[in-house]
Amino acid sequence: KPEPRGRIHLDYAFHDEDNVEMADGHRLRRARLGVSGSIDDDWSYQSEIDFAENGVGFRDAYLRYNGLDNGAITIGNFKVPFGMDELTSSNHLAFIERSLPTSFAQSRRVGVGYSTGGDNFGFSTMLFGQGVGTNNDRVAEGADEGFGFGARFYGTPIRTGDNVLHLGAALTTEDTASSEDETARFRARPESRVTGIRLVDTGTIENVDRINRFGLEAGYQAGPLTLQGEYLSVNADRQSGFSSYDFDGYYAQASYVFGSQRNYRGGAFRNPEPGSWEMALRFSSINLDDADILGGEEDNVTLGLNYYAAPNVRFMWNYISVDSERAGVSEDPNIFLFRTQVSF
Amino acid sequence: KPEPRGRIHLDYAFHDEDNVEMADGHRLRRARLGVSGSIDDDWSYQSEIDFAENGVGFRDAYLRYNGLDNGAITIGNFKVPFGMDELTSSNHLAFIERSLPTSFAQSRRVGVGYSTGGDNFGFSTMLFGQGVGTNNDRVAEGADEGFGFGARFYGTPIRTGDNVLHLGAALTTEDTASSEDETARFRARPESRVTGIRLVDTGTIENVDRINRFGLEAGYQAGPLTLQGEYLSVNADRQSGFSSYDFDGYYAQASYVFGSQRNYRGGAFRNPEPGSWEMALRFSSINLDDADILGGEEDNVTLGLNYYAAPNVRFMWNYISVDSERAGVSEDPNIFLFRTQVSF
Amino acid sequence: KPEPRGRIHLDYAFHDEDNVEMADGHRLRRARLGVSGSIDDDWSYQSEIDFAENGVGFRDAYLRYNGLDNGAITIGNFKVPFGMDELTSSNHLAFIERSLPTSFAQSRRVGVGYSTGGDNFGFSTMLFGQGVGTNNDRVAEGADEGFGFGARFYGTPIRTGDNVLHLGAALTTEDTASSEDETARFRARPESRVTGIRLVDTGTIENVDRINRFGLEAGYQAGPLTLQGEYLSVNADRQSGFSSYDFDGYYAQASYVFGSQRNYRGGAFRNPEPGSWEMALRFSSINLDDADILGGEEDNVTLGLNYYAAPNVRFMWNYISVDSERAGVSEDPNIFLFRTQVSF
Repeated sequence: KPEPRGRIHLDYAFHDEDNVEMADGHRLRRARLGVSGSIDDDWSYQSEIDFAENGVGFRDAYLRYNGLDNGAITIGNFKVPFGMDELTSSNHLAFIERSLPTSFAQSRRVGVGYSTGGDNFGFSTMLFGQGVGTNNDRVAEGADEGFGFGARFYGTPIRTGDNVLHLGAALTTEDTASSEDETARFRARPESRVTGIRLVDTGTIENVDRINRFGLEAGYQAGPLTLQGEYLSVNADRQSGFSSYDFDGYYAQASYVFGSQRNYRGGAFRNPEPGSWEMALRFSSINLDDADILGGEEDNVTLGLNYYAAPNVRFMWNYISVDSERAGVSEDPNIFLFRTQVSF
Repeated sequence: KPEPRGRIHLDYAFHDEDNVEMADGHRLRRARLGVSGSIDDDWSYQSEIDFAENGVGFRDAYLRYNGLDNGAITIGNFKVPFGMDELTSSNHLAFIERSLPTSFAQSRRVGVGYSTGGDNFGFSTMLFGQGVGTNNDRVAEGADEGFGFGARFYGTPIRTGDNVLHLGAALTTEDTASSEDETARFRARPESRVTGIRLVDTGTIENVDRINRFGLEAGYQAGPLTLQGEYLSVNADRQSGFSSYDFDGYYAQASYVFGSQRNYRGGAFRNPEPGSWEMALRFSSINLDDADILGGEEDNVTLGLNYYAAPNVRFMWNYISVDSERAGVSEDPNIFLFRTQVSF
Repeated sequence: KPEPRGRIHLDYAFHDEDNVEMADGHRLRRARLGVSGSIDDDWSYQSEIDFAENGVGFRDAYLRYNGLDNGAITIGNFKVPFGMDELTSSNHLAFIERSLPTSFAQSRRVGVGYSTGGDNFGFSTMLFGQGVGTNNDRVAEGADEGFGFGARFYGTPIRTGDNVLHLGAALTTEDTASSEDETARFRARPESRVTGIRLVDTGTIENVDRINRFGLEAGYQAGPLTLQGEYLSVNADRQSGFSSYDFDGYYAQASYVFGSQRNYRGGAFRNPEPGSWEMALRFSSINLDDADILGGEEDNVTLGLNYYAAPNVRFMWNYISVDSERAGVSEDPNIFLFRTQVSF
C-alpha cells in the first residue's frame, strides 16, 4: 500500500551585503509530496516531487528489486552515488545547505543502480543518463542522451560502541549529451538558496567530451562529537584540440550534540534524538579557476545551531561568512539563515 | 501518519453578456491534493497544493505547535487573519465565489502566527511576508521581502442553543516589497472565475509605501436562517509627496437551509447536513474609485441554491446580476454559474 | 478515506534512424500521483495528475454517483467512451504505446457521463467539452467552450470459460470551440513518445465546424491467445463553402501469454498473472491524406515482449518498424523501445 510522504523546509535569509544586492526574505526551499510502498518482499517503489516555490521537480522516482541474495537493483530517478554530503538526506544534514564543493555532485539522474553493503562497508554503482525533465530539451535539440557510470565504496575500519571511523571514495565519468554543442558548467550558491545568487561560476564551457568526478570522504564520530570532510574534484575532458579543465574543493565540519548524538547509518550521519541541541562549524572551499576559466574561488565559514524539537521537526540557524573572489573582484557578504523543517 | 486530503471544485458558467465577451464553459476551479498529519500531541502539519487547470499553487503549507497552554503557533504559508468570508473554507461558503470586497484580503502568506480562542471569542495574529512562489521574482528584482502584521478578534455575545451572534474586527498593515518600484493593485472578478475577466481594477499604483486593511464583520444565526455581512477597506499609503488612496466595499447575505442548519465553528459558518437544500441571497459592493484612480464600482446581486448530496459532496447554482461602471462605461452582464464539489 | 495511487512508466528508446534525427534516451513517460476513495456506498471520486518530465497534466478527476439501480453517473475529467485501445488502461496495454489510429481518440474531457453494463454488454455515453487546462486559453481568446456527445456500445456474443468474443462500436460528434478560428488537427507519434517526433500530421485545418468520429472494435480471446483490432475514422466537417475532410486508420494485434492469460473485464483485456511472459505482434495503419491535406500515411509493425515480474510490475520490449510517407517523402526508421512499469 502506498504511504504518503513529504517534507517542508522553509528558509529565511537576511544578508549583510558587500557589493552585490541580495534579496532578504523567505524561500520555501523544499516542499515535497510523494508516496513510497512495497509491492511484495522483493519489490518496492518511491515517487516524490518537489513543489517548492510552486515549481515541479522530480526527486526519487524509482522501482527497486530487493530479491537478490546480496544487494538491491534500482531503476528510475535517484542519486548518483557520489559525495557523502550529497548522499546525506536533506532532513539529516548538520547545516542548512550542503557544502560549496558538493555542487560538483550530479545529484539525481535517471538510470539503473546496484547497491550492496555489510556491517563494515557499503558499495553502490550506477549507470545513468540525464535527469527527469531533460527529455523535452534533448528532443528539441535532436540530441542523444549522454550516459555515465559511477561507483562509491566506503568502509568503517572503526565501529565500536559510540566510535565510528568512516572512509570512502567515489568516482563517476559521463558523456555529455551528444548534441553538437557539448557543454559543462560548474557553479555554487553561497550555501544559501534564498538569494539565488552564485558568486562562483565557470560559465558555459564548450567542446566538453566527458566529465569525470572524483571524491574522497572521511567521517569520525565519538559519541556527541561528529567530524566529517570531503575532497571533491571535477575534470572537464574536452574534445581533441581543446585543453581540459580541472576544478576542486573541500570542506571540513564538526558538530557537537547536547543531549544525545548523531546516528551513523548507511554511510551517513543522521539526526540526533528529539530534545537535543546541536552546535556545528564548517569550513568549505571551492576553486573554479583554471587556465582561462575565471570561475572564482570561495571560502565559507558557517556556524550552526540546531534544535530538534520533535521527531522529524527541527529548527536551524546558520551564520555564513563568505569570502569570494572572481576575476579579481572580491565579494564578502555575511548571511543569516534560519530554517523550519518538518518531514513526514 | 500523513493523511491524504484534497478537493475538486468544477464550475460551469454561461453568460448573458453586455458588451464585453465572456467565454462560456468550464473551469476546474480548485483541484487540490495534499496531506495533513500529527507528529505527536504538540506538533502537526499540513501541505496542500492546488493543481487547478494544470497549474501549481501552494495553499496551506505549515508546521503547527499546539503545545502551549493557550493557543497555537503556526509557521508556514497560511491565511492572514483578515475577513470572515476569506477565512471561511471554500468548501463551506454559501455562494460559489467569495464576495467582491473579499478581493481586498491577502489570503495566504508565508509567516508565523499565533491563535487562541474560547467558547465566546477567538483571536489570531500573524507576522507575514509575501506568499509562496514570490521568491524567484523578488530575487530577480533584488528586492527584500516586505513584511506585515495582522490581527483579528471576534466574539459571540449571543450563543444560546440555535442562536449565534458573531461580531468581529480585523486589521493588517504591510510594507510593500522593498524594491525600487513599490506597487499595489486592487481588482475583483465578478464573483465568477470562469471568464477570468475583471470589471473593476485600479491598475498598478506606484510609489506605495504601505498597505493597510481594516474589516468589520457580523453574523447572526437563528436555526436554519444565517445572516452575514462585512465592511472591508484598504488604504494604499504612498511615499511622501504622493497622496494616498482608499478603497472599500461591503456585502450582506442571507441563507436559509431546508432540512437542517449551518454550523457555527471557529468564527465561521459551516455547511449543513447532507440531504439539505439551501437558498441564499447576497448583495455585494466594491468601490475602486478614488481621486485620479478610476478602478470602477461594482454591485452584484446573487441568488444561490445549494444541494448537499452527501458528506462533502454538494451542487451549487448561482445567478449573478452584475452592475458595474468604470470610467463612465457601464458593463452589466448576468452570469449563470454551476458548481460540482467534493472534498476529501 | 482517500487512498493514494499512481504509476511510474519509464521508457528508453534507441533509434535506427532514416533521415530525420531522433533523440535516443529516456523519457519518464508517465509519473502519476493521486487519490481515489468513496464517500459512502453511492459516491466515489478520483483525482490523479501526471507529472511526467516535470509537467502537470490532470488525468481522471471526477465525482461518481453509483446510487442508480442501473449504471453510474460521472462528472469531471475522464475519458470519452471512444476506442477500445484508448479505453484500456496504460497499465494493461499489450504494447508500450497505443496504436497509430488511436491518436484520433479525444482521451479525457470535462463533462458528464452515464455508463451501464451487464454480463454480456456495456454502454457508455458522455456529454463533454474540452479538457482540463484549456480554460485559460479559451478565456484569452474569448471563445465559448465547444461541446460534444459520444457513445460506445459493446457486446460479448461469446463468453464461455476461456473464450470471449467482443464486438463494439462508438461514435462521437463535437463542436469545435466557438472562437473565430475553429480548427482541427490530427497527427500521430510513431508509437514511441521518446523522440516526440510525429511523422504524420495534417497541420492545422481551418474553418472546422464539427468533428465526427466513428469506431468499430473487435476482440477475441482463446485462453492465452488474444486478438484485437479496430477501425477508427474521423471527419472534419467544415463551415459552409469549405469541403470536409476524412481520415482513418486501423490496427490488428495478437498476443500470446506463457504461464497464464489475459483477463477480459469491462470491455478491455487486462494483464495476465505475475510470472508470465507475453509475446505480441501488431500491425497498425493511419492515413492522414485527403484532397489537399497531405498529412501522410504510416504503417507500423511492432513486435513486443512483456515480462510480468510482480503484481503491477512489468518490463516491456518493443521493436517498431515504421514505414511512413508524407507529401512524397518516405521516412522509415526502426525503434527499439524499453519500458519499466510499476503502478500502485
